[in-house]
Amino acid sequence: MADNRKGNLPQIYQHNLTLLTDLYQLTMANGYWKNDMHEHQAVFHLFFRKSPFNNEYAIAAGLAQAIDYLQNLRFEVDDIQYLASLKSDNNEALFDEAFLNYLQRFKFDCDVDAVAEGTVIFPNQPLIRIKGNLIQAQLVETALLNILNFQTLIATKAGRIKVAAKDDIVLEFGLRRAQGIDGGLSASRAAYIGGCDATSNVLAGKLFGIPVKGTHAHSWVMCFENDLEAFMAYANAMPSNCTFLVDTYNTIEGVKYAIEVGQYLRQQGNDLIGIRLDSGDLAELSITARQLLDDAGFQNSKIVASNDLDEYRIKMLKKNGAQITVWGVGTRLVSAYDQPALGGVYKLGAIKSSNDSNWTYKIKLSEQPAKTSIPGILQVYRYYKDDLPIADMIINEDLQNKADTLITSNNEVIDISSYSSKKMLRPIFRKGQLVYDLPDIHAIRKRSIEQTKVFDELLLNDYKIGLERSLFDYKSNLIHTFA
Amino acid sequence: MADNRKGNLPQIYQHNLTLLTDLYQLTMANGYWKNDMHEHQAVFHLFFRKSPFNNEYAIAAGLAQAIDYLQNLRFEVDDIQYLASLKSDNNEALFDEAFLNYLQRFKFDCDVDAVAEGTVIFPNQPLIRIKGNLIQAQLVETALLNILNFQTLIATKAGRIKVAAKDDIVLEFGLRRAQGIDGGLSASRAAYIGGCDATSNVLAGKLFGIPVKGTHAHSWVMCFENDLEAFMAYANAMPSNCTFLVDTYNTIEGVKYAIEVGQYLRQQGNDLIGIRLDSGDLAELSITARQLLDDAGFQNSKIVASNDLDEYRIKMLKKNGAQITVWGVGTRLVSAYDQPALGGVYKLGAIKSSNDSNWTYKIKLSEQPAKTSIPGILQVYRYYKDDLPIADMIINEDLQNKADTLITSNNEVIDISSYSSKKMLRPIFRKGQLVYDLPDIHAIRKRSIEQTKVFDELLLNDYKIGLERSLFDYKSNLIHTFA
Repeated sequence: MADNRKGNLPQIYQHNLTLLTDLYQLTMANGYWKNDMHEHQAVFHLFFRKSPFNNEYAIAAGLAQAIDYLQNLRFEVDDIQYLASLKSDNNEALFDEAFLNYLQRFKFDCDVDAVAEGTVIFPNQPLIRIKGNLIQAQLVETALLNILNFQTLIATKAGRIKVAAKDDIVLEFGLRRAQGIDGGLSASRAAYIGGCDATSNVLAGKLFGIPVKGTHAHSWVMCFENDLEAFMAYANAMPSNCTFLVDTYNTIEGVKYAIEVGQYLRQQGNDLIGIRLDSGDLAELSITARQLLDDAGFQNSKIVASNDLDEYRIKMLKKNGAQITVWGVGTRLVSAYDQPALGGVYKLGAIKSSNDSNWTYKIKLSEQPAKTSIPGILQVYRYYKDDLPIADMIINEDLQNKADTLITSNNEVIDISSYSSKKMLRPIFRKGQLVYDLPDIHAIRKRSIEQTKVFDELLLNDYKIGLERSLFDYKSNLIHTFA
Repeated sequence: MADNRKGNLPQIYQHNLTLLTDLYQLTMANGYWKNDMHEHQAVFHLFFRKSPFNNEYAIAAGLAQAIDYLQNLRFEVDDIQYLASLKSDNNEALFDEAFLNYLQRFKFDCDVDAVAEGTVIFPNQPLIRIKGNLIQAQLVETALLNILNFQTLIATKAGRIKVAAKDDIVLEFGLRRAQGIDGGLSASRAAYIGGCDATSNVLAGKLFGIPVKGTHAHSWVMCFENDLEAFMAYANAMPSNCTFLVDTYNTIEGVKYAIEVGQYLRQQGNDLIGIRLDSGDLAELSITARQLLDDAGFQNSKIVASNDLDEYRIKMLKKNGAQITVWGVGTRLVSAYDQPALGGVYKLGAIKSSNDSNWTYKIKLSEQPAKTSIPGILQVYRYYKDDLPIADMIINEDLQNKADTLITSNNEVIDISSYSSKKMLRPIFRKGQLVYDLPDIHAIRKRSIEQTKVFDELLLNDYKIGLERSLFDYKSNLIHTFA
């Protein structure tokens, strides 16, 4: 059912998302247009400055939705009418009529390069680079940040949870606590990319082709006289989908009733798939439940647990001997509870007017050196030794296509000329045309899980990250010019 | 342009949201259907147990979207095809074919009562009550929680920020850091309901009729040689919308250039609306900037500030003498950074089979008394003395229509018979038909601001909240039955 056609996500939104932007993108566009700068070319990079959750890296996600957004950019008649209705503080029309006519002819024709979804990325490395018409490249800032910030945040969180759960199954259960409808849909997608095994979110399952899981809630049990009657009724109705939630009244009693119904299921040729714990001391309860299940011959019945879980609690429960092998994770995953926003930014790297033959590289300074942007038209190379990644280097593609020397953030100078490398930013659009074959979501998830495994086994203290030497020098000189 | 027709929100989603639910709602539905319980009637209440951000109360929001969702409930052919494709663990079809045929005929015909948007509500009080067919009332749990949890969370956060900002203007700037597309759209709507004055989010402005604001970003300045050139170019292009962002290179220099361009603007018959600070010590910089502006005759030019602001930082800045009168609030508002999820729940309160003439009231017990639900068909009365609210009481409407005695959570017994009261839950749907005139968003915001003002001036320690006496007794007896 899920529509995984290349470059073609299922249509979720009826309203075109071109106006999903900050008003200042449009007032600036009006300004560029009036200043005769609407033929200027610009390069913008989207990147984050610090990995979320004190993780060493993030897992890129959201490109599929970003592509969908860019492919559908256009100002509809009623968008233009809305913009024409806006007033400035002194009650004059905010936008020039001729500018609005220009927007009606707007067609996205930039070049876009981006890191593939499911890839491990580090701070300051562009997730996406937009090169082309200044007005177009500026307009898309807000939506690209919205989409990539959130999905990258959630994929990274899911990766951390999957690492904590080791070889166990992780189910994403967060829709009811997600930040709005798309907060749920996009979170389910990104959580699967990051390593979750399935979701409870049926619409995400249908739209994105993610496996879906679910059995019953407390309310099922409450519709009957007691656990036993409730489990029997469920067993008769859905005999091949029996994971019983045992804590509606008393957890250990609930486990005993589940076993009783498990025996009934076996008589019918089915089995007790498992039980679910949703409150109380999950470590202790799971140990007791495991013993009861094993003693009754249900060694293969699984113990599922849920209740405000995240990577920290899963690690703690494992340390305390919890006999849990399926983890239902909701609120703390889909809202990235301990850091609910990735602070991605979108910065100008280079500009030229239609008369210029050369690019002018641009820098955004800050009193905090970590907030100073990197000038140029940036690419990221990942270097490998014996097939294992050893270093990441940002280069200015406009200056340098070959690179021998890496300067790390600690000012280490490293000769990387003998190593093989891959370009991390791949061509996505050329002159507004999609040139990228979007992988299916299962391939993206596989990449993410493989890369997480590789990078978690590397000694990341030794992993070298920095700038190509001539870019490093260029940036240093530019900072001194302003100082 | 914004479509504020009663009961009719603009269509944002192309895909019908009926499948925006947890899979277990559908497996339970299959179970009810197979157990011949699909004609059972049920009552569910959606409520939260603890106000967010340690606030005393929350501001209800999201009902308009919830209505839109309920009005469009139906299983499309491809939804049914998707459900038919799902397998259980042993690879059998998860759903019965006859059940799926039943879903195709599904039509929402429940009674719905809810608290109006913009209303102050307290823990354990139903925000919405669904009464009707068990399968229908159960199915809608997940989407209703998703919608109401998030918007109520953000409206409450916005209310706190507006209180901190006192009579200043608060602008919501959060789209780029919001949790997905709807995380941005719904947050802009809820933030406006909670008291924000405008948003940067153009699509939210168009769809919901919210005022939009914006001028220019750092990237505008970086496209020119320096601040002065950038501000002049903006002034020539958008002379009636000049609030200059002054911190791209050096904030105080930036203020001086803004003043220079302000003088130019005045020569043209326009004015400098203001300046915006986005980094550094906002209190100190705003004091210096105010002095520079005043000395140059720009007493009416406003100082806007932004940079990870929230109610705590606004209070601190005001305490430190900040000369800021417009606050741009982004990430920490739209993601509710310090508590990114409201833990709303949806609990069964009563049930009856098609043969029963009376309802059976249901309770969900918990080892934590605060997590025990309230049995019955609940209504909330708010009592007034001299037009000021003095008490809130939950009653079981099925038992009691008149109520004299309130038992508070501290077991205080209070005679409220002499006070006037209002029912907080209002009829929204009757037999699936909308019977509620949806107020426009400005009226909702007005209610929210007025109620916030009233409740913030009450001594909330003295505000009486509890259960009607016979409901209190019924609940206590039910707990003892299980103990």
